[in-house]
Amino acid sequence: MTITGKMIIGRRKVVGEGPELYAFDPNENRMLEPTFLSATRQLVDEACELATQSFDAYKELPLEARAGFLERITANIESIGSILIQRAHSETGLPMARLEGERARTANQLRMFASVIRSGHWLNATLDSPLPDRQPLPRSDLRKLMVPLGPVAVFGASNFPLAFSVAGGDTASALAAGCPVIVKAHSAHLGTSELVAEAIQQASVECDMPDGVFSLVVGSGSEVGTQLVTNPAIKAVGFTGSRQGGLALVRAAFNRQEPIPVYAEMSSINPFFVLPGALSKRTSTLAAALADSISLGAGQFCTNPGLIALLDSEAARNFVDELTAILGKQSAQTMLTPGIAKAYEVALKRRFDDQAITQILSPTLDASACTAQPAIFAVTAGEFLANTLHREEIFGPASLVVYCRDVSELLELANSLEGQLTSTLHFEDGDEAIVRQLLPILTKKVGRIIANGYPTGVEVSHAMVHGGPFPSTSNARATSVGASSIDRFLRPICYQDVPSKFIPPALQDSNPLSLWRLRDGQMEKH
Amino acid sequence: MTITGKMIIGRRKVVGEGPELYAFDPNENRMLEPTFLSATRQLVDEACELATQSFDAYKELPLEARAGFLERITANIESIGSILIQRAHSETGLPMARLEGERARTANQLRMFASVIRSGHWLNATLDSPLPDRQPLPRSDLRKLMVPLGPVAVFGASNFPLAFSVAGGDTASALAAGCPVIVKAHSAHLGTSELVAEAIQQASVECDMPDGVFSLVVGSGSEVGTQLVTNPAIKAVGFTGSRQGGLALVRAAFNRQEPIPVYAEMSSINPFFVLPGALSKRTSTLAAALADSISLGAGQFCTNPGLIALLDSEAARNFVDELTAILGKQSAQTMLTPGIAKAYEVALKRRFDDQAITQILSPTLDASACTAQPAIFAVTAGEFLANTLHREEIFGPASLVVYCRDVSELLELANSLEGQLTSTLHFEDGDEAIVRQLLPILTKKVGRIIANGYPTGVEVSHAMVHGGPFPSTSNARATSVGASSIDRFLRPICYQDVPSKFIPPALQDSNPLSLWRLRDGQMEKH
Repeated sequence: MTITGKMIIGRRKVVGEGPELYAFDPNENRMLEPTFLSATRQLVDEACELATQSFDAYKELPLEARAGFLERITANIESIGSILIQRAHSETGLPMARLEGERARTANQLRMFASVIRSGHWLNATLDSPLPDRQPLPRSDLRKLMVPLGPVAVFGASNFPLAFSVAGGDTASALAAGCPVIVKAHSAHLGTSELVAEAIQQASVECDMPDGVFSLVVGSGSEVGTQLVTNPAIKAVGFTGSRQGGLALVRAAFNRQEPIPVYAEMSSINPFFVLPGALSKRTSTLAAALADSISLGAGQFCTNPGLIALLDSEAARNFVDELTAILGKQSAQTMLTPGIAKAYEVALKRRFDDQAITQILSPTLDASACTAQPAIFAVTAGEFLANTLHREEIFGPASLVVYCRDVSELLELANSLEGQLTSTLHFEDGDEAIVRQLLPILTKKVGRIIANGYPTGVEVSHAMVHGGPFPSTSNARATSVGASSIDRFLRPICYQDVPSKFIPPALQDSNPLSLWRLRDGQMEKH
Repeated sequence: MTITGKMIIGRRKVVGEGPELYAFDPNENRMLEPTFLSATRQLVDEACELATQSFDAYKELPLEARAGFLERITANIESIGSILIQRAHSETGLPMARLEGERARTANQLRMFASVIRSGHWLNATLDSPLPDRQPLPRSDLRKLMVPLGPVAVFGASNFPLAFSVAGGDTASALAAGCPVIVKAHSAHLGTSELVAEAIQQASVECDMPDGVFSLVVGSGSEVGTQLVTNPAIKAVGFTGSRQGGLALVRAAFNRQEPIPVYAEMSSINPFFVLPGALSKRTSTLAAALADSISLGAGQFCTNPGLIALLDSEAARNFVDELTAILGKQSAQTMLTPGIAKAYEVALKRRFDDQAITQILSPTLDASACTAQPAIFAVTAGEFLANTLHREEIFGPASLVVYCRDVSELLELANSLEGQLTSTLHFEDGDEAIVRQLLPILTKKVGRIIANGYPTGVEVSHAMVHGGPFPSTSNARATSVGASSIDRFLRPICYQDVPSKFIPPALQDSNPLSLWRLRDGQMEKH
């Protein structure tokens, strides 16, 4: 495979006619070949039209065909080989080993969705038996299942060029649901996007999928993305990125003649509570592991712990000293893009300028390098509550320590939080009373609660929730990681008295798919 | 019980201080006592504050306590007695027998939700076992379940003063989910609303529910409703009514600092296809039953069949003649409100003025009476496709016949439809080829497909879907009737490595609630 600068519109490889784009190597501070040309509106419309046409055939395919398609995509991505890792490394500055791990994660995610498709739990097959003799009126035969929404637009994330990008969780779950996908390539990893898109396109041909079930478009700025989201063919949007970018898509989708759902995973500071018992028992191991979690991937994780809540004490101050000492020894890491590096610098400078913030670890800023070093700040809980600046996510290896006078202030802090993807609690037996007060508050605020662990590292499994109340996402009812992410692209439909020969196999009397089904309110499998 | 004109704010009965409102008797064309006074912003805020406070306790109650609360509400509503039916009759003009049936439906719906709560299927308990030895990284213990969103605002519908109002499906499903509810009373049935609200309040006291788990506010115009929806305490909205009213709420909710979901069930013309085989075999029974469905409740049903699609033929014309003859003999029925009667008149006049529309049955309009008589219009498919007027819902006993030249035009008509709550197909064996072409199109358009039946009459059960793509609702992924309507007010949360003593019973190892749970991708109940 080679990188050509072309887009993929259904089965065609196409050169754009819009503005030029280049990928950028943040390690070597240089543009990367080849030239990409943005899609015109006409090309976006063509991809949407093809997606609409393909939907009719794709949604009716047997589940096994859909699962086989995802498995073929997986195999094709794995067989791209080292050029994929090398290109992703050049485009993102992320270490090769990390990218190999991310490729494995991407493959496992696709395989999981193949098994999810086959399991059919997501169909939510539900049957109510007819009651012809019921008084005063008989009951009809009612059968419900989930059907796909239609073509989905996917916006990949800069920080996971494989696992949250062209063949990432959004694409995998949408294809699994029966929805065609059009990906808007992230401009920070154009070549990686093309390679993966070609693997999907090949799988589509090899598995005889309808033309248009997958397309990839590129574009500078927000124009192509907006054209995509506002095209009437698109019925849902998946996005991972900044609060500003996510809200712009939500607004565009809302202002359509037919509003559509946008699943935007946006910003979270992932509060990390260390209670006194845990602090006294595990100061050093905790400091080391928390330092790793803060600086992992140069802090460019959605689940990066950006707020460390402590009850003020000598032990707490010592803990912060240890944490700072470890982070202070770390060398600078390359950031994904010059824009992200610049934003990190601006975020730190705003804190430097704020008199209420104590600088605990203040890296020297080097505007010319696309790198970041860890930073630690501290405020009192009173100051935290008084200034909304402290709630804002810093995308990078920085964290804000909040010292609370007492438990009541700690609870007040928890109560003041916006919606979050995660919150973490470290505790020991003696902390039980505080845990019991914190948990009911945090369950109102977050999508995932972690005990005595670290928020970075999101398992791809059935019980995972990578979501949470606004502003961590635009839709608290969804997760963008794990088996349940398929639900975002489905809606229910009910068949009333429709003869068996006309309804999907999942609902037929003989239960040919051997599904667990809810019949008259009871689970059964026969 | 007596009607006092008061609102219910938590456990208090309160007189408003805003503008006066009166209920209106459309049968007798007169205002009804007593005076109601609109809520002030301060009262709305108070109800919201109480709801927020009550949420902390209400969400933590054992499921059995919540189920018992719903059963007590049911008993209290049933024991209000005949004053409820009489007042609802006075306020809506609906026949007493219909209202008695609606009360039974309301009670059954509440009882169903009590059993839904106990079943726990909606908790969606999901467990992934820890894999401590997995390479390269161990897997944590992950456990997911659904938790309530928080206080919900409910806007009752004018056309179901009991089943879609104060103690209707939205309130029942939100309370079942663990969400406090604040109802904005529909101004068309203020007295009915007060009676039912008092039954709920009494149940709340009798079951020792936290103060504020339920409130009822009244208000003229849209001000009180907007104050409610934009209050930060409110986390979701349930609405049944007009497209205009629904979209106004959706917009208000979207423009909040924290946007929230609005489940608005809005407008649908419920296309009704009669295929040639069915037409030739059952003309007269079909015409009689369809006439009933069109004129039921003066056509004031969300699922009223407003579009009749036929392949043009002599048989089709005869069928329409029969239908028209039956409807033409019907006397005028009282409409719910003078405003609704007026809107019906305006909608008919717009059709009278349109040269492309053939008037088949044109009632005499009497602007002074709050009544409606059936109307039937006809257009060709070509005309239907050319003018968006024909897609608009007429709220009342009117239906538009669309004559199609051939099957391909029938399919084009189906393809051109907006989102609908329902679509109905009447067919016999000889129609199979057309059915097989129509169904894949209709599954993209509707929430419920009915074979050889009638769309009016919505079963309250597990498999029901009362929802559909925009504009029939603001959220195609939801149903506002049936057991699954509880899902609207829930979101997932994941507990990672949290010790058993701190997690909800639904997720504990011993499975104390005896739930069906998904463990490592397999259903189990132990």
